[in-house]
Amino acid sequence: MATKRSLAKAHAERAKKTLGKIEALAQETIRQVKREDNPGLELPIRALSNVAFSEKHHLIELGDKVQTREFFNVSMAKKFMQTFLVAGACKDLLESGKTTSIRDLFYMTKHTIKGYKENTFDDQVESDPIIEDLEVGLDALREELHLFANKKGSMVGPMVIVDSGDEIDLSRMGSGGWSVPSITEDYVIEFKKSEAEFVMLVEKEAVWHRLNEDKFWRKHKCLLLTCGGQATRGARRLIQRPSSALKLPVYVLVDNDPWGLYIYSVVKQGSISLAYESMRMACPKARYLGLRTRDFKTYKLSDEVKIDLLKEDITRAKQMLAYPWFAAKQWQEEINDQLESGFKMEIEALSNKDISFVTDVYIPQKIAKKDWLV
Amino acid sequence: MATKRSLAKAHAERAKKTLGKIEALAQETIRQVKREDNPGLELPIRALSNVAFSEKHHLIELGDKVQTREFFNVSMAKKFMQTFLVAGACKDLLESGKTTSIRDLFYMTKHTIKGYKENTFDDQVESDPIIEDLEVGLDALREELHLFANKKGSMVGPMVIVDSGDEIDLSRMGSGGWSVPSITEDYVIEFKKSEAEFVMLVEKEAVWHRLNEDKFWRKHKCLLLTCGGQATRGARRLIQRPSSALKLPVYVLVDNDPWGLYIYSVVKQGSISLAYESMRMACPKARYLGLRTRDFKTYKLSDEVKIDLLKEDITRAKQMLAYPWFAAKQWQEEINDQLESGFKMEIEALSNKDISFVTDVYIPQKIAKKDWLV
Repeated sequence: MATKRSLAKAHAERAKKTLGKIEALAQETIRQVKREDNPGLELPIRALSNVAFSEKHHLIELGDKVQTREFFNVSMAKKFMQTFLVAGACKDLLESGKTTSIRDLFYMTKHTIKGYKENTFDDQVESDPIIEDLEVGLDALREELHLFANKKGSMVGPMVIVDSGDEIDLSRMGSGGWSVPSITEDYVIEFKKSEAEFVMLVEKEAVWHRLNEDKFWRKHKCLLLTCGGQATRGARRLIQRPSSALKLPVYVLVDNDPWGLYIYSVVKQGSISLAYESMRMACPKARYLGLRTRDFKTYKLSDEVKIDLLKEDITRAKQMLAYPWFAAKQWQEEINDQLESGFKMEIEALSNKDISFVTDVYIPQKIAKKDWLV
Repeated sequence: MATKRSLAKAHAERAKKTLGKIEALAQETIRQVKREDNPGLELPIRALSNVAFSEKHHLIELGDKVQTREFFNVSMAKKFMQTFLVAGACKDLLESGKTTSIRDLFYMTKHTIKGYKENTFDDQVESDPIIEDLEVGLDALREELHLFANKKGSMVGPMVIVDSGDEIDLSRMGSGGWSVPSITEDYVIEFKKSEAEFVMLVEKEAVWHRLNEDKFWRKHKCLLLTCGGQATRGARRLIQRPSSALKLPVYVLVDNDPWGLYIYSVVKQGSISLAYESMRMACPKARYLGLRTRDFKTYKLSDEVKIDLLKEDITRAKQMLAYPWFAAKQWQEEINDQLESGFKMEIEALSNKDISFVTDVYIPQKIAKKDWLV
């Protein structure tokens, strides 16, 4: 079982490992300089051209094409310098044991180069891709570089965790829940004791509130999370761990629209833009429990809950049809059902029947009948 | 001290009181019908024409102008019916002891009127103002009608609370914190034990993270909250209570821009659109601890942290100059300083000096020197 000391030790060891990777990169560059070579960094290409969907792992994976970022190259010199500037700032963070936001990192590394009017960075849109370069170049998640984007979301359930040394009983978190932090790596969050039998990720805050107020998670023994929309990296890491280590099924409860499908697909197999992290962020066994077009008939919903598809919904749905991870028959049918019906529905539509219909009927019935999509 | 039972009792009593208000409204309407009068509801007008800034209370207050919403009036009949439909749904919620989102309420009350093609509501933009009418008409906050908007924000500090029967020690919440719920009325959240000496509300999630990681709240004995932008109603009620009951000072740490000023001003004296709730939501003693234009010199910040004011920043700042609650000399100077300087700054700008500068220098120094604005 985790103690404050063992977590701190794990934290220090992980930091040491990441520091080692940064130092190796720097040493290699120094060697190139001493050899009077043109110093260069090899970075895997993060673009659609180097991304593929692995049928075997059911993951969006990065291929092995690389680019070289060279110092003696007018078009690359600035980015070369920026890469080491960000790496240096991450080294400082790791050494001090502190973590910070990607916005903060931008301020930490922004300065005017001595003797010139040139800034190291003018905008955060310049520093963010450099962080991604480093993540993939060093094979270290952003969180391991002690960086994070904003946190979002809440969690409750029959589980005791240790977060930064504090033992927290997620079954005694009242109406608010535990606020999911930005960094949920195993050296920050330790699962101490769990009676959870599955994970339920809910798109909507309000639906999470309904399920929490109805104590759904107590009756059905599940971890209940929401991110209010797209799942954050913190939440994805948090889901991924019980899913792989404790072999818990993960259900994703989203609206019946292309955006709900997208939220599910990112949780399941990662995204194109962040393909390099799929291996450690994705839950290939996640199950889509969201509202389906045919649920309109199954649950005898009334016409008033239908919302006309907008032009952008139709465009997005057609894109989804073309993604290899939605190539399977059940998905093609589902997406075509939506396009043909011409409407979408929110999960809240179920409240038109009864406020606790989602808790008492919809979810238990879907799970019992195995009426999910994968 | 609160127990699960005493909270449940308080909850039931509050619900009974609100139910009584709804029933009195209905009874009065029935009496009008029996007298063969034109049934009508008297509702205070929620518009700028009926809003004034009270110098005495330092609050934006609603005046006493009322409008009558009549049944036998073509332009009012639908709204009259909608008002009772929403009141009826709130009655159901109160009786069942459940709470729900304003989105959900829309679905609960949306249906097609029998025999007609007319819907009770076509869009949530119709049902939201009806909720506000009821709040002001019944003198019951939305939360007392068991309704809420989305929750947002996290909290930590040297305090033990009881949330829906669960005792939660806010000093042992790890890196994530307690997720601030939508409804934080005293029958949901009870303050059990507190060593807090002040409240610190932080605009930015990342700054909250910095202060939490540095355990600022432990050293300085404060409640540390963030909402990631504008404070939610739940957070405002949560701040307002220690501020008035425990007489704790409230500091608001925001960016140096007109939007930071606005966040502060809503916490302090309420907003025009929701003037009817100011009395119970506002903290007239809140202190602005946000970055000021002159801090650029005081803290010897470097030019790179300056961000040029945009056209909309300038327009907004000029609006602020005209608000009576910013009429005092110190505010006019502050806003004019910003306009003349031509730049704004984010709190994260302090990280350009040192990652923990905000924790170790900026806040303690400002509080020690009483360098805040009110």
